[in-house]
Amino acid sequence: MPDPHARIAASFARQGLMTTLGATLTSVTAGRVEISLVPAPAISQQHGFVHAGAVAAIADSAAGYAALSLMPEGTGVLTTEFKINLMAPAAGERLIARGRVVKAGRTLTVAQAEVFAVANGAEKLVALLTATMMAVTGRDGIGD
Amino acid sequence: MPDPHARIAASFARQGLMTTLGATLTSVTAGRVEISLVPAPAISQQHGFVHAGAVAAIADSAAGYAALSLMPEGTGVLTTEFKINLMAPAAGERLIARGRVVKAGRTLTVAQAEVFAVANGAEKLVALLTATMMAVTGRDGIGD
Amino acid sequence: MPDPHARIAASFARQGLMTTLGATLTSVTAGRVEISLVPAPAISQQHGFVHAGAVAAIADSAAGYAALSLMPEGTGVLTTEFKINLMAPAAGERLIARGRVVKAGRTLTVAQAEVFAVANGAEKLVALLTATMMAVTGRDGIGD
Amino acid sequence: MPDPHARIAASFARQGLMTTLGATLTSVTAGRVEISLVPAPAISQQHGFVHAGAVAAIADSAAGYAALSLMPEGTGVLTTEFKINLMAPAAGERLIARGRVVKAGRTLTVAQAEVFAVANGAEKLVALLTATMMAVTGRDGIGD
Repeated sequence: MPDPHARIAASFARQGLMTTLGATLTSVTAGRVEISLVPAPAISQQHGFVHAGAVAAIADSAAGYAALSLMPEGTGVLTTEFKINLMAPAAGERLIARGRVVKAGRTLTVAQAEVFAVANGAEKLVALLTATMMAVTGRDGIGD
Repeated sequence: MPDPHARIAASFARQGLMTTLGATLTSVTAGRVEISLVPAPAISQQHGFVHAGAVAAIADSAAGYAALSLMPEGTGVLTTEFKINLMAPAAGERLIARGRVVKAGRTLTVAQAEVFAVANGAEKLVALLTATMMAVTGRDGIGD
Repeated sequence: MPDPHARIAASFARQGLMTTLGATLTSVTAGRVEISLVPAPAISQQHGFVHAGAVAAIADSAAGYAALSLMPEGTGVLTTEFKINLMAPAAGERLIARGRVVKAGRTLTVAQAEVFAVANGAEKLVALLTATMMAVTGRDGIGD
Repeated sequence: MPDPHARIAASFARQGLMTTLGATLTSVTAGRVEISLVPAPAISQQHGFVHAGAVAAIADSAAGYAALSLMPEGTGVLTTEFKINLMAPAAGERLIARGRVVKAGRTLTVAQAEVFAVANGAEKLVALLTATMMAVTGRDGIGD
């Protein structure tokens, strides 16, 4: 398998939402993807924490790209469902979403992402996502 | 109960993410909240559809505010978990997330949100979210 | 489409777990299936309520058969994931799980089931399940 | 903390469903609980695999007891929600559900359970559950 970094980075660059949120792709290996996000008022909910939707967005992208990294070239990935448990307020210097594949299948892949808040050099688990990703081929406009 | 619109609108205005996404609060009644969002490249995933994270963000806010609309004044709401099924690509002229309370409890409220894509005057269901919302009182910085 | 009742009833009769739990198939129409269960110590958790697993079992079967009722003959159905919110203790004279299709697709169908507890002639919503069901064809041993 | 095994075993013995399914409590340590189940026609779905509801039942109990093992004596545990991804047919000589606490809180605890199918000496992951467990005190009939 070719190094998945270039493929995932090219797709990530097309995700307008990641740019809008200020998220960055910080690591890609086969089956594992990491995305980082700096908390800011522009992505907050009403109490000043990072909005659950923004936390979910980076977790979903990390899980989805972990899944895509194991799919054949030319195959696209769509999220069919995810569930996220939010265990602590998302705040701090940086959020890191770490996605990994739990079970890769031909059509469906189950992936998970943990989201950590980094503050004062320590990481704290703030959210846990599990998702079902679908491999899509031969549909117009659905590529990597 | 006072009209919940003013309370929810004031809280919504503090959600930086909603402004960043371009979402608007389009309806509030007791136990029901509607949020709208216009698809745009700035909130897209890699194929040009609205990113699952943005869909989840408006669905979560709609469900959370539906829950908050039934909670006593001064109580805040936090999302403890949600699950979203994405049934069709989120695209079209406008997305509408309609949140409603399924079961209101003293501590935990279960709420649901359906997200519809509007195109050519027709609505299509594209996502379904179920969430557990927690009422929070007496914690610093957690209000409406 | 032929009347789905016979098809679903035949499959239901092969679900050993339904017999073991004492569940009965009480209604089938296209896209909607109802399963009933009488609370008893044999299906309880530690406090005497019906165990979440038994509640989930009838809700999953109701949702899965609602999905199957809309699939072509000879196609089988498998649950790929479900989430259930348990909103009140499952007790009373009878539990009724009502499954319905939210979105039928060629490969994946999203279905929902509500579980009600019946006591003194009144119904109370005790659980809500959302599931992704997969249509399976041409795999050994997987039929209706 | 006292050894949690006696406490969990006593509660497990009151779960009528576990007896009915034929499940056994095979390991308890602080924050981790293991439950085993032998596949049989009495707990099957229509294709002969173990029913998703039975898989969910042992996964939910394993996760719930992992949570309870970290709660103060006299506190009871209730499942408020869980989601389960079913990744492969549940079959083989034995199923093992391994529950562990992800985040213990005063009111809510997030726990996870993995379910493995054992065949020919090898384990295969067949299901993954994430749950929110609620600590309950001072409510009639809700104890360990």
